[in-house]
Amino acid sequence: MQVTELEKLRTRLQQVFASHISKFREACYLLFGYRVEFAAEAASVSSSGTSTIILKPQRSDSKRAEFIFKMSKSQKEVHLTPSDFTRQHLKTEVQTFLDRYKSAPAFLANYTMEMFQKDTQC
Amino acid sequence: MQVTELEKLRTRLQQVFASHISKFREACYLLFGYRVEFAAEAASVSSSGTSTIILKPQRSDSKRAEFIFKMSKSQKEVHLTPSDFTRQHLKTEVQTFLDRYKSAPAFLANYTMEMFQKDTQC
Repeated sequence: MQVTELEKLRTRLQQVFASHISKFREACYLLFGYRVEFAAEAASVSSSGTSTIILKPQRSDSKRAEFIFKMSKSQKEVHLTPSDFTRQHLKTEVQTFLDRYKSAPAFLANYTMEMFQKDTQC
Repeated sequence: MQVTELEKLRTRLQQVFASHISKFREACYLLFGYRVEFAAEAASVSSSGTSTIILKPQRSDSKRAEFIFKMSKSQKEVHLTPSDFTRQHLKTEVQTFLDRYKSAPAFLANYTMEMFQKDTQC
């Protein structure tokens, strides 16, 4: 087998993988209302093995809205990295849902509901 | 290049891919509180090109809790497939968030908050 054929196989497999990941990402956006991006591999996996995940909400009243989480190497925990945005707008929510109850799902679901209610008056 | 070497390359690429998807899936579970599974490829992509996604909530008061969504081929829409569980427990929520406002994120976030509040009395 020639090198070019090997490259063709690699390219084809990478395309299949990319299409699967893209489908997963679109499903997350449609289902949960957040764009999920892992920071570029070199930057996203630190020496401690944590990964950096960036979430951008579909609905928001601020263009600066984004949430940066670190996922532990064990993939058992996520921790919010505080930003100007979270400090200014979500201090109480961070304290309640993340610090007290350790629930990223409640923190993000609460934000989704607040923005939904703001948009729809529902 | 021998066939075995080709197989090795394929296996290695598949492992890398599986590890990426697994990391993405764990991140979704930790961040949004749902296990996200695409139905097995043969079953998940119908002749119309839609995919079937199964969500299992981290917190629930029912062991039967799961949500089945179909994602359109264009990957622009998701639609809940009604089940006994949703018909019995979430009739109003389906009508409000999905039928009226076409918002899967609000529907799922609302369920997350309800279960969170039930667990924590928060």
